Amino acid sequence: MLPAFYAGRRVMITGGLGFIGSNLARRLAALGADVLLVDSLIPDYGGNLFNIDGLEGQVRVNVADVRQASTMNYLVRDREVIFNLAGQVSHIDSMRDPHTDLDINCRSQLTLLEACRHHNPGVKVVYASTRQIYGKPERLPVTEQHLVRPTDVNGINKAAGEYYHLVYNNVFGVRACSLRLTNIYGPRQLIRHNRQGFIGWFIRLALEDQEIQVFGDGSQIRDFVYVDDAVEAFLRAGATDAVNGEAFNVGGDEHITHRDLVELLVAIAGTGRFRFVEWPPEKKAIDIGSFYTDASRFKAATGWAPTVPMREGLTRTFAFYRAHYDRYVGGGEGAAPS
Amino acid sequence: MLPAFYAGRRVMITGGLGFIGSNLARRLAALGADVLLVDSLIPDYGGNLFNIDGLEGQVRVNVADVRQASTMNYLVRDREVIFNLAGQVSHIDSMRDPHTDLDINCRSQLTLLEACRHHNPGVKVVYASTRQIYGKPERLPVTEQHLVRPTDVNGINKAAGEYYHLVYNNVFGVRACSLRLTNIYGPRQLIRHNRQGFIGWFIRLALEDQEIQVFGDGSQIRDFVYVDDAVEAFLRAGATDAVNGEAFNVGGDEHITHRDLVELLVAIAGTGRFRFVEWPPEKKAIDIGSFYTDASRFKAATGWAPTVPMREGLTRTFAFYRAHYDRYVGGGEGAAPS
Repeated sequence: MLPAFYAGRRVMITGGLGFIGSNLARRLAALGADVLLVDSLIPDYGGNLFNIDGLEGQVRVNVADVRQASTMNYLVRDREVIFNLAGQVSHIDSMRDPHTDLDINCRSQLTLLEACRHHNPGVKVVYASTRQIYGKPERLPVTEQHLVRPTDVNGINKAAGEYYHLVYNNVFGVRACSLRLTNIYGPRQLIRHNRQGFIGWFIRLALEDQEIQVFGDGSQIRDFVYVDDAVEAFLRAGATDAVNGEAFNVGGDEHITHRDLVELLVAIAGTGRFRFVEWPPEKKAIDIGSFYTDASRFKAATGWAPTVPMREGLTRTFAFYRAHYDRYVGGGEGAAPS
Repeated sequence: MLPAFYAGRRVMITGGLGFIGSNLARRLAALGADVLLVDSLIPDYGGNLFNIDGLEGQVRVNVADVRQASTMNYLVRDREVIFNLAGQVSHIDSMRDPHTDLDINCRSQLTLLEACRHHNPGVKVVYASTRQIYGKPERLPVTEQHLVRPTDVNGINKAAGEYYHLVYNNVFGVRACSLRLTNIYGPRQLIRHNRQGFIGWFIRLALEDQEIQVFGDGSQIRDFVYVDDAVEAFLRAGATDAVNGEAFNVGGDEHITHRDLVELLVAIAGTGRFRFVEWPPEKKAIDIGSFYTDASRFKAATGWAPTVPMREGLTRTFAFYRAHYDRYVGGGEGAAPS
């Protein structure tokens, strides 16, 4: 069904040079879609031209900021599906500079949705939300019935971004849905700094044979999704009208403690080591304890299920970064300057 | 306890020339507080200099926009309690111009909270949220355990504004809480146009002996709180540290259908009439059906309870507008230009 749906389909990916966006672009190109990537290449945000290395001639790249209304009004016009992944994803940056996070995670979403409302109301939009909007869970696994109670500004603004999509679906008929992604990992993730979640950073440290510091006793549980499975979730959401107007958890079936995760990382990498350290107070203040989601609503609606086990996904990930280390850590020409 | 707490207390009210803000200012002045009112007097938003008629010498007015950072950094410095009521409150305007709503209901809140964080972290902030953030209720009465699912952009941005306050409380120690207000009515409410909720507009129509149009069969239920009771809720929240970091419903004990409400309005006014009409599609799209809240958590935390029955509150309201009609409907000098 997906090959038939996406062959020749005119799609746009905002944040298309980023981690998930570029993996999605590769899959869509392979499916024969007409792929337009929009990315602002803001330093430190995850956009990296090397992410689409080898896709020359198969995708179009338009460097632009989603906040810029006239640009978006033009770019959305002939698109049939928009995968809306552009955003500021650092919790920590959002607490240092909340106004910028607001601009990038809220204003940009309104600009995109207004562009669709006025210039392409027939488009379908799939929004990349995050499990982070739930905050500290009251019970596990977390279903979509759990209250949204973000613990940082980034989580708040991501929640607002999601709600805009659902309101534009319900009120203006711009078909849209939202995927609340758990921890996604895999090739092409930003590992240049440690402000965008811990998994990419841990992978880099293991790769560099450095020490990974695990906060507390490492007993916090997380679920993970390999990026190819996340891409599959976006494709199915984009092709399924049954999900319109709804937000869904997209999470992994494997739950793993931080302790077991770093043991696995070090074992697969064959390099690196780890040590348990006290929680830094500023991180403890926005920590949420254990977290894993129940993705059964999304599975039922779309038939999606994760297929790549963590051991396999991490093995592929380390192989990728070993082959292309300079493009993600050094000052390689493909990387956005930081 | 409130007289002792507020006597000489340095308070600030954003939106201080508006409906609830000015009624709060009157009460605080009577309690002997040092009252600073901040209001941008944006036309059509509810700020009205006549609202503080008679308070000359008892309160200070600083015309300013909460979005303006340097102004807020200065104004918050010596305040002990901030009642944060400034905002854009029209659902309809938010759907026409979502960017302005974002600016006024999100950016302004971050600006105020950043001012507190950096220049007065010991202050206490009470935020005026709204029942509207719940959207269409799944069950009645609505408790704080109900999901937040706004049906319009204004509701989304008000929800984000609330979440910011709770995060600044939890992460930065700027004590803050949020009151999710139900329908508030009473003297000094904007009745100049019909884009800020129906109760003020219905009151005006009855007053002018005009026809009130009730959408559908008028069977939707609402709860109402007289403004003096809402003021009491703000005062108690400001004086009680047990509410910090939490959001509370503030709603009325009386539930009434639109049909019974307009009958009561016409009976009390002695003028006006009503007629049932079809739902206009654009209003139906953001309607939420029946709604009333369970305020028991707030009552338990603060001892608050509404004291003014609807019949009494509406009687006082009509008397006020009959006495000062020109100040709220005509182009009187006290009114903000529209």
